[in-house]
Amino acid sequence: MHLLDIPQPYLIFVGDNADRLDVKTGAGIMEWRPDRCMGQYRFPEGGCDLGLPDLDPASARQAGAATMVIGGASFGGKLPPRWEEAVSEAIDAGLNVASGLHDKLGARPHLVKRAAEKGVRLFDVRGLPEGFSPPIAKGSRRTGKRLLTVGTDCAVGKKFTTLALERDMRARGLKATFRATGQTGVLISGQGLVIDAIVADFLAGAVELLSPDNASDHWDLIEGQGSLFHPAYAAVSLGLLHGSQPDAFVVCHEATRDRILGYEDFPTPTLAECISLHVANGRLLNPQIQCAGISLNTSNLAPDDGRRMRQQIEDELGLPCADPSVTGMDPIIDHILKW
Amino acid sequence: MHLLDIPQPYLIFVGDNADRLDVKTGAGIMEWRPDRCMGQYRFPEGGCDLGLPDLDPASARQAGAATMVIGGASFGGKLPPRWEEAVSEAIDAGLNVASGLHDKLGARPHLVKRAAEKGVRLFDVRGLPEGFSPPIAKGSRRTGKRLLTVGTDCAVGKKFTTLALERDMRARGLKATFRATGQTGVLISGQGLVIDAIVADFLAGAVELLSPDNASDHWDLIEGQGSLFHPAYAAVSLGLLHGSQPDAFVVCHEATRDRILGYEDFPTPTLAECISLHVANGRLLNPQIQCAGISLNTSNLAPDDGRRMRQQIEDELGLPCADPSVTGMDPIIDHILKW
Repeated sequence: MHLLDIPQPYLIFVGDNADRLDVKTGAGIMEWRPDRCMGQYRFPEGGCDLGLPDLDPASARQAGAATMVIGGASFGGKLPPRWEEAVSEAIDAGLNVASGLHDKLGARPHLVKRAAEKGVRLFDVRGLPEGFSPPIAKGSRRTGKRLLTVGTDCAVGKKFTTLALERDMRARGLKATFRATGQTGVLISGQGLVIDAIVADFLAGAVELLSPDNASDHWDLIEGQGSLFHPAYAAVSLGLLHGSQPDAFVVCHEATRDRILGYEDFPTPTLAECISLHVANGRLLNPQIQCAGISLNTSNLAPDDGRRMRQQIEDELGLPCADPSVTGMDPIIDHILKW
Repeated sequence: MHLLDIPQPYLIFVGDNADRLDVKTGAGIMEWRPDRCMGQYRFPEGGCDLGLPDLDPASARQAGAATMVIGGASFGGKLPPRWEEAVSEAIDAGLNVASGLHDKLGARPHLVKRAAEKGVRLFDVRGLPEGFSPPIAKGSRRTGKRLLTVGTDCAVGKKFTTLALERDMRARGLKATFRATGQTGVLISGQGLVIDAIVADFLAGAVELLSPDNASDHWDLIEGQGSLFHPAYAAVSLGLLHGSQPDAFVVCHEATRDRILGYEDFPTPTLAECISLHVANGRLLNPQIQCAGISLNTSNLAPDDGRRMRQQIEDELGLPCADPSVTGMDPIIDHILKW
């Protein structure tokens, strides 16, 4: 498969990040994969508490942890000297180390040498797995079912929606697997491919590997990226749409967003326009593609307004509208099960 | 700009390629830029005659040539030892050298050293120019007019059509510039960017650089790649469509092609479908986008059948249908001038 495959369970490295907002990746792993988290590693001068047992790398290894994940962000994406020491310590304890920092672990020869000596692996999830050479897409239909989350813009809740769908489908006994396409998603699930590092010619081919043949009642839930309506990133979204060949897609939207972030001249599309363009492009690889509903992030609205807006969307489109943080994904799952 | 910019005029390296089909790049340069070709460099044992004066690198340099271009293909894209000697000879004579081979000139330290000593440059047009880091697309409207060639498939005549449009628009006194996006196009025009080497996130941004602000009556004619209907390469085509923000597009089609090359399960789209999907996606960056006509490659049809098919397309779509090899591009240029 050549996709990323990071051994779990995890020790979450918090270090000296005092603010929970600076430990977003760690908090995300805790939110979606609490059963894969053995502990947190904080520096004595105080890092934020994710609610996990405090363990140093040696104790974590003894308790069964397989990988230490850098859970936080650093200034400029650099690996500060104190963090680098902690990485060395983890390697010495026999843990793999996974990082989403710009500053690559694999670019530090002494860490690479030490990891090789200890027989552990370093995962830099920005960029492609070592030795991975993506194929040209085949375009052939694969068995099993696929759902892709798409968006009216970037940063509207595609990853959150996809993980919530996995949680809620599994809770109902359905077979479902989250397929990560971004670095936080990969660190949360331990698997996937960070697709924004892929040369455009190979994009759909790489995405095909993410959701191979599966049981006919199994759903691959593929994390979307960018938007077909984004002036810079639409090519990424189209490669993902084609390589995923989804049977269903969920349109994610942030309730108060009316302009593409950072592109004030570009209004966000209407939900109907967004559905229509995804069907127009997506039917090339899957003529049965259809919209399964809307995932509306209403966190910037008063609860009553959020409820009203969801209702209005349902009335207008004749499709379910869920807010993963408020309603869960059941409205959309109910709808899919009727197909 | 950081785009490729290969000094002309050229000495075309033919070497020992005896068959004209093996010297496609050289023949293409001769066809479209005969005034930029000073001579051909053939080995004594016989290479095919492109109809240029036979010159060795030293005489070509003296006659004013700036760059020797590898005009032919080699087995497996390798640089054979005899060719490497010829490259050395060209460097010693003070010529730059440009190559589209897989086997990079820049990967041979002795050639790189020699070129630096002589103050000449080596251009490997597969891949990005050295030091080129493509920006994220801005999406802002640029001045001047733009036309993009698109296709129902790969290999349907997009490059040929774009070059023919440039030739025929210039013949009528219009301001028009061919903008190359593939390696042969770059070698022919001496400028451009080979976009299939670009990471998807940066694709539209790189394409924006290809057709900067220009005079309001100037046409940038942008060479298309892939097809929105290609199961592997559609992402490339969409990045090109968005980054080009074309006012006009010409749909290129090979008259007898009914399946995507190498993808038997995928029929080529109807011309109407092809127009409609390009408008649906292209209007994001240019709401005025419209189809300027069809460029039909009828070389696999009897002349009468070709004429009939062109007429039928014109009647059906109400748009001009040209065959660059038969009618030239005037039918489409006439149409654009009426807008």
